[in-house]
Amino acid sequence: MKKLKRSARLVEMTQYLLERPHTLIPLTTFAERYQSAKSSISEDLAIIKEVFESEGIGELLTLAGAAGGVKYIPRQPKSASLAFIRRLCGQLEQPERILPGEYLYMSDLLSYPSLTNEVGKMFASAFGGQEIDVVMTVETKGIPLAYATAAYLNLPVVIVRRDNRVTEGSVVSINYVSGSSKRIQTMSLARRALKEQSRVLIIDDFMRAGGTVKGMMDLLQEFKASVVGVGVLVESGEVEEHLVDDYISLARLSGVDFKTRQLTVAPGNYFDEEEGNRTL
Amino acid sequence: MKKLKRSARLVEMTQYLLERPHTLIPLTTFAERYQSAKSSISEDLAIIKEVFESEGIGELLTLAGAAGGVKYIPRQPKSASLAFIRRLCGQLEQPERILPGEYLYMSDLLSYPSLTNEVGKMFASAFGGQEIDVVMTVETKGIPLAYATAAYLNLPVVIVRRDNRVTEGSVVSINYVSGSSKRIQTMSLARRALKEQSRVLIIDDFMRAGGTVKGMMDLLQEFKASVVGVGVLVESGEVEEHLVDDYISLARLSGVDFKTRQLTVAPGNYFDEEEGNRTL
Repeated sequence: MKKLKRSARLVEMTQYLLERPHTLIPLTTFAERYQSAKSSISEDLAIIKEVFESEGIGELLTLAGAAGGVKYIPRQPKSASLAFIRRLCGQLEQPERILPGEYLYMSDLLSYPSLTNEVGKMFASAFGGQEIDVVMTVETKGIPLAYATAAYLNLPVVIVRRDNRVTEGSVVSINYVSGSSKRIQTMSLARRALKEQSRVLIIDDFMRAGGTVKGMMDLLQEFKASVVGVGVLVESGEVEEHLVDDYISLARLSGVDFKTRQLTVAPGNYFDEEEGNRTL
Repeated sequence: MKKLKRSARLVEMTQYLLERPHTLIPLTTFAERYQSAKSSISEDLAIIKEVFESEGIGELLTLAGAAGGVKYIPRQPKSASLAFIRRLCGQLEQPERILPGEYLYMSDLLSYPSLTNEVGKMFASAFGGQEIDVVMTVETKGIPLAYATAAYLNLPVVIVRRDNRVTEGSVVSINYVSGSSKRIQTMSLARRALKEQSRVLIIDDFMRAGGTVKGMMDLLQEFKASVVGVGVLVESGEVEEHLVDDYISLARLSGVDFKTRQLTVAPGNYFDEEEGNRTL
């Protein structure tokens, strides 16, 4: 790459860092890339760090020493996330979203990468401090949320299938009871899709009693894997007993009245301690 | 937002633009955001434009006039894409990827957002000049590729389901013959998931004879929608007759020998005119 001026370097380094979250980049990489002294690179990084942190884009960690470098950690302040989630709650409260079988129609909203990326940024902010090997979800609607989260965490995604038509070699299947339908269903995962002892973050779009998430947890036991965290976009507050206790929700559905088609959606437990969310 | 120096503005504007591809941003948005004169903003944008274009990040279109502003169009040069695809081809040629039923195991590679985002960038570069309303795929493995493409094109994604368990109101279903299994299968799409007359870009991970893509095209007729383009990550060159003629492939699988477990994967038709790809 040709030698760049500081102004051009700042543009290119910003793009380079944003494309590589949770990745350690040695200063020499930048110094060689731009044919610049490490001291200049350090000054550039100080400018980027200040903007990233003051604008709520994320942190820029600097690690000193021979194995040192810089690492971009996406982290959105909860206040910014809350403003976004409040708008989403408003959209979710539209009466025509109530479907037969106590389902909430969200596919139109989940079809926008701009929304799924925002949600991924929130989950990455919530779980970014933990040691995670892989993000897991079950097909279909959780997939874009899992990929968005994994992109910000620089992790791979494992997708649990709901059928047995998988064509990926030997498969582990379990039966589980979906909390809503009370029917026995099957989910499966190819043996080679997940290493044993993996630390797993579970992401899904919707959780009622938690039967599906509990099913994924049971499946993980077959792989001797452990669950580091559970994140759901919307939880239903209409449930007497949850099968899963420890999870983060970004929004909470309650007060569904199928006759009047009224429902309430409020920010989820992720925002419970946020100023301005207490009175809700 | 507080008044920023040029260096800080460049970092923040770069991030702002990268998060909003194919979106017209009026200069006044930046001028107000940074409390700066439009002339300063124009100078900033000229610097960003030069870096984006010289480094193969994309184009920065400037539209003059009252309705004017700036628009970031992600566009990766084919030469950069080809280098990435060549490495991918090498990984796909591993013998253990051959599965019973002429399937190729790719889930491990598709599990990385860094790969799906690169592929999305290529499809967005290939189809970015066309008028498109929505990106469509069929569950499951095409989903991350469709979302990555849609993110770079600033479009929503529509996911065709393979079952009838959809819980999204009235549904249109069609039967189609999968080119490989020769079995009749069903795919369906909620009526409210796609507006009539939509212009659709179809994205999928793998195409053999094209039965699945053809199925999606038939389904689209039920919505009076039109197909603007078809993009597949890997096509099989082992097919006598394709059901789909007009498509872009990024890689091409051929020479599969199930006894010796040998196979060849080369760059796809997207690179056919690229220098250095002709001799393959």
